[in-house]
Amino acid sequence: PHVVVLPGDGIGPEVTQAAVTVLREVLPDVRIEELPIGGAAVDASGSPFPAEVEAAAKRSDAVLLGTVGGPKWEGLPRAMRPEMGLLALRKSLGAFANLRPVRVLSGLEHLSPLRPERARGVDILIVRELLGGIYFDGGREKREEEAFNTMRYSKAEIERVAKVAFWAAQQRRGHVTSVDKANVLEVSELWRETVTGVRSAHYRDVGLRHEYVDSAAMLIVTDPARYDVIVTENLFGDILSDLAAVIPGSLGLMPSASLGDGPGLFEPIHGSAPDIAGQGVANPAAAILSAGMMLRHSLGRPGLANRIDNAVNTALRSNPTRDLGGSANTEEFTARVLEALV
Amino acid sequence: PHVVVLPGDGIGPEVTQAAVTVLREVLPDVRIEELPIGGAAVDASGSPFPAEVEAAAKRSDAVLLGTVGGPKWEGLPRAMRPEMGLLALRKSLGAFANLRPVRVLSGLEHLSPLRPERARGVDILIVRELLGGIYFDGGREKREEEAFNTMRYSKAEIERVAKVAFWAAQQRRGHVTSVDKANVLEVSELWRETVTGVRSAHYRDVGLRHEYVDSAAMLIVTDPARYDVIVTENLFGDILSDLAAVIPGSLGLMPSASLGDGPGLFEPIHGSAPDIAGQGVANPAAAILSAGMMLRHSLGRPGLANRIDNAVNTALRSNPTRDLGGSANTEEFTARVLEALV
Ligand SMILES: CC(C)[C@H](C(=O)O)[C@@H](O)C(=O)O
Ligand SMILES: CC(C)[C@H](C(=O)O)[C@@H](O)C(=O)O
Repeated sequence: PHVVVLPGDGIGPEVTQAAVTVLREVLPDVRIEELPIGGAAVDASGSPFPAEVEAAAKRSDAVLLGTVGGPKWEGLPRAMRPEMGLLALRKSLGAFANLRPVRVLSGLEHLSPLRPERARGVDILIVRELLGGIYFDGGREKREEEAFNTMRYSKAEIERVAKVAFWAAQQRRGHVTSVDKANVLEVSELWRETVTGVRSAHYRDVGLRHEYVDSAAMLIVTDPARYDVIVTENLFGDILSDLAAVIPGSLGLMPSASLGDGPGLFEPIHGSAPDIAGQGVANPAAAILSAGMMLRHSLGRPGLANRIDNAVNTALRSNPTRDLGGSANTEEFTARVLEALV
Repeated sequence: PHVVVLPGDGIGPEVTQAAVTVLREVLPDVRIEELPIGGAAVDASGSPFPAEVEAAAKRSDAVLLGTVGGPKWEGLPRAMRPEMGLLALRKSLGAFANLRPVRVLSGLEHLSPLRPERARGVDILIVRELLGGIYFDGGREKREEEAFNTMRYSKAEIERVAKVAFWAAQQRRGHVTSVDKANVLEVSELWRETVTGVRSAHYRDVGLRHEYVDSAAMLIVTDPARYDVIVTENLFGDILSDLAAVIPGSLGLMPSASLGDGPGLFEPIHGSAPDIAGQGVANPAAAILSAGMMLRHSLGRPGLANRIDNAVNTALRSNPTRDLGGSANTEEFTARVLEALV
């Protein structure tokens, strides 16, 4: 299989390198093509998502992304910002469903900022809509004195991501919580109606509950064990998935998969962490686990994915990286994972 | 002074009654006018915010609100929903700055869902913009198959709420965190520029940091002590203030003040809790503390406000309500507060 690796900025190159090492170990015949994206691509060619990178990503079997962005590029005009490269990549792959699993491993509850009794047993899959909503339609008006962005969804866009969520729930504990702000927003009314309709038409065996986004933000902290699958629109998903990601104790643990009509896109959910970039101390667990999700969701190798999951857990239990109170650097942690691959 | 009390729905009548009892005790000459809002007003007159209620609120010195909404009214057409009454009330009072203090009282850290060392010393004031953003402009299109809501701000709307935040920070620890999504949204770019400009022009003595909303959602849980004042737009403020409100351990503790061009509006931030309504067990602390905020911000009686704050703290330490693991019912808790008023 052909995997395009886009290391990106900040700690992106360090953590993707670790992930590629592990990927090659379990899948020796993988063909890796490495290309720049984000700030690195701006520096190299003036665009955060060059045409040749888009072409390579589209003809690949899957894409592994590091992280994009950093203070160096913050002052640039919008179209040249690293984040715009990421949004364009997601769009060009048709990756409308962003899967973000949040799991507290048994024995690692002490890493959570929550009291251990609240963190225990948490196992949530957040399905975030990734190509619609407020991200793609905005501007400035009235001589720059006003600005707007429009959150917009069609029924079809909601249906396709709802189906992914219900399908995922069938593989798990059979329950979906749909999050919206239907007491105020028309776009959320459509969201709620449509999700309800998809369940009635195709997934009557799956439980469905609706929550308002403000209430969900509280419940994710006070009662995270109530959730199996959460499905929500792009902006709410951005906020709630980062929020939920703190429960296990470090963003450095959280992988993601973005699936849709083209090759899958796999990336850690943490940022580019410019403060520690280049020091070799970043936690590569999320990137390695993202490679695991790639094996499972895009390359059809669930057995190899499980081996990676287990090896990362073993490495975390022996000596985690500094963000988790351990002392391993990136290379040492990766070596532990390789050793633990059985 | 003339105070309009709008008990509203669910536990609203019980908790506002407790607050009025305490208010009368410290300010015997207060004139209370009680009127319906929300579902109660829909039932009485077909509108969630009747014209005579609006007129009374506008000529009052301050408004004390309970809570609105409940399953009974969820199926109604939008214009008749209780929540629309609340939004119309805020607009009609010109209440653009919603102040939500979040404080973990020393000795009450054990009530928090966070580990005690993270909860200790938390003292945040969230200033939420309340009259703009995505709440007021939306609709359905394309034969109901599409829907949208537009988040819109003018520079003037951002400036006036930013000034409230900087002013509040001057009375506190001198630091403002402004939360936006400026890496993606044009409306957030305007927000960030404008807040930065207000500081440079008028508040150079106050520190200012910008955070993205997804990152802030994490940091509020992992490092809440980093915040003094947080200022943000309406929807982000809705989500983040509910999130922050879980830190002290119960929504039942959280008051709010909404200030602007007309009489101030004071309300607990918890919902109408239909499941326990009418049982006399609701926690009235947030409503009582909201009456305290009214004394401070609208009636110019900071001494009386302090007496209420202290009395509520004493009552909480002796025997809190059930949501906090105590056994006091609403009446017993209120009696404790009255006894503790010194
Ligand atoms: C960098 C940014 C554009 C992005 C988003 O908001 O989608 C990030 O926060 C994420 O969640 O992947
Ligand atoms: C009930 C609802 C309209 C309201 C809001 O979103 O403003 C509530 O959640 C709040 O925070 O006061």
